[in-house]
Amino acid sequence: MSSRIAKVAGDFRMHRGGSLREPVIAYETWGELNAAKDNALLLFTGLSPSAHAASSQENRASGWWEDMIGSGLPLDTDRYFVICINSLGSCFGSTGPASIDPRTGQRYGLSFPILTLEDVAEGGFEVVRQLGLQRLHTVIGCSMGGMSALAFCVRHPGISDGFVSVSSAARALPFSIAVRSLQREMIVKDPKWCGGDYDPSDPPLLGQRLARKLGMITYRSAAEWEQRFGRERITGEGDPDSPFHGDFAVESYLEAQANKFTGQFDPNCYLYLSRASDLFDLAEHGGSLRAGFERLQLKRAMVVGVTTDILFPLQQQRELAAGLQKVVPEVLFESLDCLKGHDSFLVEMDAFRPVMCRYFDT
Amino acid sequence: MSSRIAKVAGDFRMHRGGSLREPVIAYETWGELNAAKDNALLLFTGLSPSAHAASSQENRASGWWEDMIGSGLPLDTDRYFVICINSLGSCFGSTGPASIDPRTGQRYGLSFPILTLEDVAEGGFEVVRQLGLQRLHTVIGCSMGGMSALAFCVRHPGISDGFVSVSSAARALPFSIAVRSLQREMIVKDPKWCGGDYDPSDPPLLGQRLARKLGMITYRSAAEWEQRFGRERITGEGDPDSPFHGDFAVESYLEAQANKFTGQFDPNCYLYLSRASDLFDLAEHGGSLRAGFERLQLKRAMVVGVTTDILFPLQQQRELAAGLQKVVPEVLFESLDCLKGHDSFLVEMDAFRPVMCRYFDT
Repeated sequence: MSSRIAKVAGDFRMHRGGSLREPVIAYETWGELNAAKDNALLLFTGLSPSAHAASSQENRASGWWEDMIGSGLPLDTDRYFVICINSLGSCFGSTGPASIDPRTGQRYGLSFPILTLEDVAEGGFEVVRQLGLQRLHTVIGCSMGGMSALAFCVRHPGISDGFVSVSSAARALPFSIAVRSLQREMIVKDPKWCGGDYDPSDPPLLGQRLARKLGMITYRSAAEWEQRFGRERITGEGDPDSPFHGDFAVESYLEAQANKFTGQFDPNCYLYLSRASDLFDLAEHGGSLRAGFERLQLKRAMVVGVTTDILFPLQQQRELAAGLQKVVPEVLFESLDCLKGHDSFLVEMDAFRPVMCRYFDT
Repeated sequence: MSSRIAKVAGDFRMHRGGSLREPVIAYETWGELNAAKDNALLLFTGLSPSAHAASSQENRASGWWEDMIGSGLPLDTDRYFVICINSLGSCFGSTGPASIDPRTGQRYGLSFPILTLEDVAEGGFEVVRQLGLQRLHTVIGCSMGGMSALAFCVRHPGISDGFVSVSSAARALPFSIAVRSLQREMIVKDPKWCGGDYDPSDPPLLGQRLARKLGMITYRSAAEWEQRFGRERITGEGDPDSPFHGDFAVESYLEAQANKFTGQFDPNCYLYLSRASDLFDLAEHGGSLRAGFERLQLKRAMVVGVTTDILFPLQQQRELAAGLQKVVPEVLFESLDCLKGHDSFLVEMDAFRPVMCRYFDT
């Protein structure tokens, strides 16, 4: 139950070159480490969340996986010591492009080296090391975090007995790369981005809003929106500047979502993490996916996916599970028929909790 | 085999109010009208094509449905008289927002009235009337054109014996509305759009390019791109302005597609037609979908859809077919397992031709 910072001493070498001087990794923990030090769960997040996955004594605000972590919940804090990492490159306490480079006294901006999920994984490893842990019970990752978790396991084979992938993949599909590429282009083509050197108090909000709307279109599902909005109209919400917007309920929803998100996340951090999601490919570790899976040296794994997910489609979860099954003694594969697409793991908790219990209760 | 213009005498009253003064509708025809005048096929297009669906003596350039229309092809010009309509509101000969309003001598721009697919249908009817046709063999529509064809049939019940819907629907889903709404926002938020009063020689190309990229993401399928591009890289194509783009083959493809399309289509015309696609709902004709279907008074119909289409998903085709089956004596429903998503009807001709023959050969 604490929010902490792990400080890296000296230079942190990045996977694709360059280094960071004494970066920090923000993390939170829940529950207690047992005497055998073998009950730790390490959790990597999707692109945008902070390390605040659940409320705690220190921070009573609800976390992004509030209904999953706690006493009597699937990640049971009576039994497990849960650690959640704020990804390197993010802007919620960990060092990222919005941080000051101690070597220059200026914000990194685009001088931040190329970020990969291998770097995010090493950030997590730094936390594990500083906590004095030799072993982990399971590494868990949601969405992008599933790839960070794979990177962690492949770089530190055998350190974790288990691996749980939630709505993730062994590498990004070209469809997902195309979506993210377009989201990034919306931001960098906003004149206020200023080649990455924007005024933090006047960021490229327009580009961020457009990118967030495209995000929502790919995070949810057509079936959910048909049920939720149909062709319902909202009167009086039209944008007076344009006769082409605003009166369908789904348009009003996207507008509200875009306004909620932007301003919370630094645009450069978003660009770096988004690109890191494209770049990850387990097959780069060993020359093939098969070789990558073999390097993980896992004892147990679970892969969970959702039928309506278009960003990390179920087929990718099947492939991930099939790849693991070749080399891991015990692999659970769970396909959930949730309506809310990729975001289901954040909102359809009644579906996800029993599945997570199947792995963590045994 | 001719490219013609139908001029409307006097005022053309628009479905949602306002009028156009003496608008014109561009169309092309192939084949010959028979003595009984009962072999005419009327074809409505998707959002962006012109009336040039196939090459002809006058215009030898390939048309957008070149492999479907001609001697011995499914829309067999030895047997049928085929008419293709350039939608009202478009910019390929028919009157649209980029045309000069004769009442002012200025381009319509945003003074163009709200456009609906009922207006597009009436443009088609004007052509039919001027050709002296009392009856049509079949009205065909692809994508948006399927809804224009439904609008035509519901406004002129009994005029056509048949109706063929290709990758279309009885009304737009909120997912599709969300996608189009975001595409429109990309254009109107481009400073060069200038509130709709842009310089035609300096249009909002950035917004158009972004909108086209999102279009391509929804027109094709994740499965096609996985097979076609995988994670292939293109070297040397990165945008020097941005470290976040360009080296995946799929990004390079989107860039090429965006550059090809923009400059060909007027931005305001796009905005009007895009919004018209959102607005159409067969249920508005009679108060329910069922009542709308009943009004069509068709004898035969065919609904063709593609399993990988995310813009007009197969479920919508099923619903359209089911609705027609309640009131039309003979309804064919064809689900095609093509890889290329919504665009399949333009590119997977080997799959579509046999299906079209099943309807048109009998």
